[in-house]
Amino acid sequence: MTGKLFVIGTGPGNPEQMTPEAHAAVSQATEFYGYGPYLDRLNLRSDQRRHASDNREELDRAAAALRAAATGATVCVVSGGDPGVFAMAAAVCEAIDSGAEEWRTVDLVVLPGITAMLAVAARIGAPLGHDFCAISLSDNLKPWNLIENRLSLAAKAGFVIALYNPISKARPWQLGKAFELLLSELPATTPVIFGRAAGRPDECITLQRLGEADAASADMATCVIIGSPETKVVARNGKSDLVYTPRFIAGGNR
Amino acid sequence: MTGKLFVIGTGPGNPEQMTPEAHAAVSQATEFYGYGPYLDRLNLRSDQRRHASDNREELDRAAAALRAAATGATVCVVSGGDPGVFAMAAAVCEAIDSGAEEWRTVDLVVLPGITAMLAVAARIGAPLGHDFCAISLSDNLKPWNLIENRLSLAAKAGFVIALYNPISKARPWQLGKAFELLLSELPATTPVIFGRAAGRPDECITLQRLGEADAASADMATCVIIGSPETKVVARNGKSDLVYTPRFIAGGNR
Repeated sequence: MTGKLFVIGTGPGNPEQMTPEAHAAVSQATEFYGYGPYLDRLNLRSDQRRHASDNREELDRAAAALRAAATGATVCVVSGGDPGVFAMAAAVCEAIDSGAEEWRTVDLVVLPGITAMLAVAARIGAPLGHDFCAISLSDNLKPWNLIENRLSLAAKAGFVIALYNPISKARPWQLGKAFELLLSELPATTPVIFGRAAGRPDECITLQRLGEADAASADMATCVIIGSPETKVVARNGKSDLVYTPRFIAGGNR
Repeated sequence: MTGKLFVIGTGPGNPEQMTPEAHAAVSQATEFYGYGPYLDRLNLRSDQRRHASDNREELDRAAAALRAAATGATVCVVSGGDPGVFAMAAAVCEAIDSGAEEWRTVDLVVLPGITAMLAVAARIGAPLGHDFCAISLSDNLKPWNLIENRLSLAAKAGFVIALYNPISKARPWQLGKAFELLLSELPATTPVIFGRAAGRPDECITLQRLGEADAASADMATCVIIGSPETKVVARNGKSDLVYTPRFIAGGNR
C-alpha cells in the first residue's frame, strides 16, 4: 500500500502568505517532517505527528518521510518559503533517485510557496522587476570558488542577485567577500537590500549601498538582494525609500 | 486625501495558489486595474469597479491606478503570478519615480504571489533546487543582443534558466534562437521543461531535451525551464518523470 507525500512551503512565516492548497495538504496529512521552527508555524491537531529534525539533515529527513509514505501514510514535508528553492523538494527527489524502488511509486505532490526573495522584494518595491538570479551563498554544498565565479558572471550579465543563506556562525566571512568581489564589477552606489524575516513580527528591511554594505547586517533569517546597475532608489517624503529595477532597457523593439 | 494602492499577484491562475493576504486586499479595494484575463480571476462584488487594459499598457495602467489612489480610493493593481517578477510592481514604481509628486505619498502595499517558475517547478519535481536565474525573453523592453549575452553568461555560470515571455505572435523566432545559442554551451541532453498554465485546468507540462527542444511547444502562457549540466531526470514506473537539480556539487565543506 502506497501513501501520499506532500512537499509544501509555508512562505516566509506570515501565515497570510501560505497558500490555501498548502493549508489543505496540512489538514490531510498525519505525519509531518521538517526543521522544527517550520513545523512550529503549523497548528497541528492531536492526531497529527511531528517529526522535527535539524536543518542540516535534509536527506535523512526526506528518506524518513518517503519510508512513511511508502507504507501507506499521508505525509507532509515542510519547508519555509518555497519547497523548490534551496529546500526540501530537491532533497526528496534526490532520495527517490538513489533510494528504494518503492519510493518511486509514492504519490508525490510538491506545492509551491512564496520564496524569501519575492517577499523581501515586495516590502521595498520591485527590485526583481528585471532579469535576476538566486544564489545560495553556502559553501557547505558546493565549493567557494564556484560561488565566486557565479557572482562574477551574474554581475557581468547585469542580473539583480538574490543571495540565500548569506551567513551563519560556521560561515562568517563569505558575505563580506561576496560584496568585495561584486564591488569590482558594480558601482559602489548599487543598492543592497537586507531583508530579514519578511512579513513576520520581527521583520527588518534595510537599504545600504554596495560600497558600504556591512555583512554583519545579515543573519540566517536574511535574504540579501543586490541591485543591477539599472536598479533605482525613489525617495518618498515621510515614507521609506522604494527600490525597483525598471522593466525597460533602451534598445528594445517597443 | 490619500488612498491606498495594493499591487497583488493572483499566482499562475489556480485560485488555491493565491495567498490569503492577496484575497484580503481584493476584498478591501474598490477600483481594480489590470490585464483583463487577470481581473477575470477575481470574483468582484457589484460595488467594485473593473478597469481592464491591454497587457502592453503597463505604465499607463500604473499611472491611472496612482491617480485614483491619490484622490482617496482604495485601489488594487492585479498581476498574474508575482507582481514583482516582470510585472506591475516595477511599472508602479516607475510611474511613481517619474510622475506627480503626490503619488509618492500614496500608501503603497505590494503583496507577493506564486510566480510561474515556482508553480511549474513544483509540478515536475525540483528543477530550481540549485542556483538559477529568471530572464524575460521579450526584446520589446531590451535589445536582443543583451538577452543573448545573458543567456550565454547564465549557461557558463551553471544556472538553471527560467524563461518568461518565451514567445508571442510578434516574437516567433527568439525562443528557437535561445535554444540554439544554449546548445553551444550545454549538453544536448539538458532537460527543458515547457510549463504551460501550471495549476490551471488546461495545464500542460512537458519534458524535452535541449538538442531536440521545439520552440513551437511554447506559447504566451508558458514558462520554459532549462536545466543546468547538473539537472537530473528520474524515471518512475507508471508515473511521469521527475526533474530535479541536486543541492550538492562536490567540493563543498560539508
